Amino acid sequence: MSSNCQVRTDLALEARESVENTGGKMSGIRVEEYDIEEHGIHVTKVYVDTKNAAGRLGKPMGTYITIEADAMVEPDEGYHREISLCLAEELNDLLSEEGEKEEQSVLVVGLGNREVTADALGPQVLDNLFITRHMVKIYGKAAVGEGNVNLISCIEPGVMAKTGMETLEIVSGVIEETSPNVVLVVDALAARSTRRLNRTIQITNTGIQPGSGVGNHRSALTQESLGTPVIAVGVPTVVDAATIVEDALDKLMGPEKVFERGALSDLNNMYMTGKDVDEVIKRVSYTVSEGINIALKKGLVLNEDV
Amino acid sequence: MSSNCQVRTDLALEARESVENTGGKMSGIRVEEYDIEEHGIHVTKVYVDTKNAAGRLGKPMGTYITIEADAMVEPDEGYHREISLCLAEELNDLLSEEGEKEEQSVLVVGLGNREVTADALGPQVLDNLFITRHMVKIYGKAAVGEGNVNLISCIEPGVMAKTGMETLEIVSGVIEETSPNVVLVVDALAARSTRRLNRTIQITNTGIQPGSGVGNHRSALTQESLGTPVIAVGVPTVVDAATIVEDALDKLMGPEKVFERGALSDLNNMYMTGKDVDEVIKRVSYTVSEGINIALKKGLVLNEDV
Amino acid sequence: MSSNCQVRTDLALEARESVENTGGKMSGIRVEEYDIEEHGIHVTKVYVDTKNAAGRLGKPMGTYITIEADAMVEPDEGYHREISLCLAEELNDLLSEEGEKEEQSVLVVGLGNREVTADALGPQVLDNLFITRHMVKIYGKAAVGEGNVNLISCIEPGVMAKTGMETLEIVSGVIEETSPNVVLVVDALAARSTRRLNRTIQITNTGIQPGSGVGNHRSALTQESLGTPVIAVGVPTVVDAATIVEDALDKLMGPEKVFERGALSDLNNMYMTGKDVDEVIKRVSYTVSEGINIALKKGLVLNEDV
Amino acid sequence: MSSNCQVRTDLALEARESVENTGGKMSGIRVEEYDIEEHGIHVTKVYVDTKNAAGRLGKPMGTYITIEADAMVEPDEGYHREISLCLAEELNDLLSEEGEKEEQSVLVVGLGNREVTADALGPQVLDNLFITRHMVKIYGKAAVGEGNVNLISCIEPGVMAKTGMETLEIVSGVIEETSPNVVLVVDALAARSTRRLNRTIQITNTGIQPGSGVGNHRSALTQESLGTPVIAVGVPTVVDAATIVEDALDKLMGPEKVFERGALSDLNNMYMTGKDVDEVIKRVSYTVSEGINIALKKGLVLNEDV
Repeated sequence: MSSNCQVRTDLALEARESVENTGGKMSGIRVEEYDIEEHGIHVTKVYVDTKNAAGRLGKPMGTYITIEADAMVEPDEGYHREISLCLAEELNDLLSEEGEKEEQSVLVVGLGNREVTADALGPQVLDNLFITRHMVKIYGKAAVGEGNVNLISCIEPGVMAKTGMETLEIVSGVIEETSPNVVLVVDALAARSTRRLNRTIQITNTGIQPGSGVGNHRSALTQESLGTPVIAVGVPTVVDAATIVEDALDKLMGPEKVFERGALSDLNNMYMTGKDVDEVIKRVSYTVSEGINIALKKGLVLNEDV
Repeated sequence: MSSNCQVRTDLALEARESVENTGGKMSGIRVEEYDIEEHGIHVTKVYVDTKNAAGRLGKPMGTYITIEADAMVEPDEGYHREISLCLAEELNDLLSEEGEKEEQSVLVVGLGNREVTADALGPQVLDNLFITRHMVKIYGKAAVGEGNVNLISCIEPGVMAKTGMETLEIVSGVIEETSPNVVLVVDALAARSTRRLNRTIQITNTGIQPGSGVGNHRSALTQESLGTPVIAVGVPTVVDAATIVEDALDKLMGPEKVFERGALSDLNNMYMTGKDVDEVIKRVSYTVSEGINIALKKGLVLNEDV
Repeated sequence: MSSNCQVRTDLALEARESVENTGGKMSGIRVEEYDIEEHGIHVTKVYVDTKNAAGRLGKPMGTYITIEADAMVEPDEGYHREISLCLAEELNDLLSEEGEKEEQSVLVVGLGNREVTADALGPQVLDNLFITRHMVKIYGKAAVGEGNVNLISCIEPGVMAKTGMETLEIVSGVIEETSPNVVLVVDALAARSTRRLNRTIQITNTGIQPGSGVGNHRSALTQESLGTPVIAVGVPTVVDAATIVEDALDKLMGPEKVFERGALSDLNNMYMTGKDVDEVIKRVSYTVSEGINIALKKGLVLNEDV
Repeated sequence: MSSNCQVRTDLALEARESVENTGGKMSGIRVEEYDIEEHGIHVTKVYVDTKNAAGRLGKPMGTYITIEADAMVEPDEGYHREISLCLAEELNDLLSEEGEKEEQSVLVVGLGNREVTADALGPQVLDNLFITRHMVKIYGKAAVGEGNVNLISCIEPGVMAKTGMETLEIVSGVIEETSPNVVLVVDALAARSTRRLNRTIQITNTGIQPGSGVGNHRSALTQESLGTPVIAVGVPTVVDAATIVEDALDKLMGPEKVFERGALSDLNNMYMTGKDVDEVIKRVSYTVSEGINIALKKGLVLNEDV
């Protein structure tokens, strides 16, 4: 990278590529990969094990799972159930690390701005979740189904420009009152490469960092800030405008030509997205919400099987 | 009223009429009225002073201000600024009772369901509020304007069927984290008479009671439950279906004929609304949000004038 | 019925019940019924064969198919595919009456007002249709699939209060320019009984009549007015307010008591709907759109099988 | 410009700058400018008088009026009435060129996709128009106001991917049925410079060309294609992604370095927009709709004054 600033990506996968491309050392980072060939799904797990590696990557220590599936962006009658199933499995792996519970109480947080199409992933995922907490509280577990039942609740905190409050303030307050075991945060992300847009799901146990997401969050939503384990699920829906120009320049001018990122200041707060973003977000949101629904129900089914 | 059950209305004004029509005693209730004739506005203030009166009325002790203006339901280029100004004045009167502050910190709560047109008043009012809290917190008071500046924030808690949480849980949590001086709750109400639909604004310092609003809230949002003064602003947008049938029956059969409300059980969870409800809610929401904007800015201006 | 006016219902099934209940003769009307027991589906076909019968029923001559399924109103993972399949089959029967074509060109018209939840069925059905006309026109049939391909297009004409135009004007113009073989009109209907709300689909080859639907259309959309065969698909989502009160009065006062419908004039332009109308409309729209998708694709598949 | 392809902009103003910057001759083009200093408004009128000039500019012969106002992008209590008034005046000038009529019949077409925030300008402008045609047709002119009354109607044709039809087909059909005197097309445009986004209104009597707008229309909406005079009103809300990268490259590499636009093919069908696009589009739509409302009412008032 010819500029001095860090190119912006919310994907640990891309951050790692970026470090590797400049000849960076990769100690402290483990990588596992597998394919589900019949469905064209590629899964990469990046474990950032040391503070040193975290610093070089610009991402906190923890696990980053990336599900890549080109089909995700395309129409499909069944809303890509195969991708939902893969997401459910990986989610359950991370959830089980947070401690096996007979009954999980999960708060799903849909970040983003419903009014801005590319930033609407979080809110749209909430629209298709199977919410159970109120039914169990009012009618008992029998109202929802047999066996152990997870208590699922959700909140759409909105964006600071409209609420006047930090997302952290709202989510902290809701956690204090409802005491979930785990928080699942869903957000639209920024990728570095247009090739990954809407084709990739990242799952991580490191939560949401300041400056990430389409809306550039100001404060972290992490186990440290919330006092509860946080799993973040994100899909890149935009590319940061300055980043894409920088990458094009690198490609065309060669890495030896140094230029000032300041020359691109016009592009601050601009992002790039596709023209069919509405249909794509609608489909991808459904795939993600189904993955979450299956994961949270699966926990129940697994317990029942015992 | 020929049935034994209480006819449902969220308007103290209608509850009082109902008691009076059956010859009920009205001690413990004071009423003041005034007109703004050039604008066709009629204001009624009902003060419920005793527990006894509250019991007969089916409404808690406190102040209920009703602004009636037939023009409110009609299109108008200026979004009925005269009604917004009247609302602002009455709101400021109630706000000043909660203690004069150099700087108010106000949390506005938009109750209801954005997806159900007749229940969307609360969320739509939030869309047009002037939110300042984050700007003052980040950039200081100078960013918003001169003199004392109120900190305005807002939240749309959604409905329990979608979040799995009680509104009380969400609002309590947000209050704990952000410590407002006063909470302003906006909600769509149920009236008894179709004649009052979308033509009436009720302001009260008693908060929101269980079973009120279009969505029939399960838990109270009051100073007692929230630990913060609560002012509620509501506009009746629907009539309870069973109530309207009962009233029609009373009118046609005469008060001596007793019938069983159970015969109307098919109508539970049904409400009645007008066919142009979308345009009406859009207009009325704007009138209410402007009233709130003026009130919260006015507080500032009044302090400046001193 | 004790009043002199015709009680309003868009369902031929209810109109027939109403005539029968008052001892009306039923000559000129044939009825066929069948059940799909494992799915709790009941199908009634009412054939109105004579002008005389049409007059008594208040519905034009033609075929009225009613699919009743209590499950339709309830949540279901698969969006009630069994009901969609039943709808597809009945739709194909009516479509094939309009003449077997190797390639059908179908214009789907979504009537109603997207901003009024109970009237949003038509527009929401369009959102999930599989539209092919532009792909075939631009890329050829191979772009959509093998074999004969139906050309599907759709339009949401909006409501007159917002467009200034009659729906008939807009649809006629679009037909003139795009020459479909058949027009499929989808609309939210008014039922007489709350028991049928969102649990019933009516399919008819008589089109849409003035005064029908939630929005009370002013002009007919029929083969006569459009010059193209018209099949209408509707789901009752509201009950006319005056009708429900009249029915309650009949039930409580007995049929011998005559009262003036004028006493209920306050209820004009009011309708009654359920509190969870948003979730119900979302689900039912999907069931209907899937039925249409299957029907229009099935035509193709059937041809392929030959 | 170092690349051989034409940089994409829908603004005649920018096309002219682009030609001038490369030393192009400007014969056949006249330019008039004026300022409304107290409101920070700059108006430029570009008259493309010859086919030759049209070819060099890549824009058809006709009049292009550009209203630039930096304030337009910022919040304002009165929705920038001063800009609406300027738009109304320029619109009326173009409308009067189409022939003075006692009574104008105007069809407003809102192009774009309501579900994609940056492309929602056209549909959102329709939401705030004062529609009169149906009222005059049903109740007569007295229902709308005194004197001559324009008949205003509007249509939101949607996008081809959702309707299966070309916009031209839908609009042609509606014109055939309703015979307006003039068609007013509103659309979101692509600019070359981020500096002009949401701060500029272009009005032209040349209609809409293929490939213009955010959604890249496939067929022209012009007097030639529609048989009715067409005035287009547009606001740039996006920048074409490839264009912005090219411009950045030109700036950084110097005009002598030639590069292949093909290197940027990843950016096809991508556009760049700001993060607060929802609030901006909401405000700008209101400014434009008020301008149209004033213009179409003004025509009436002017006639009355005579």
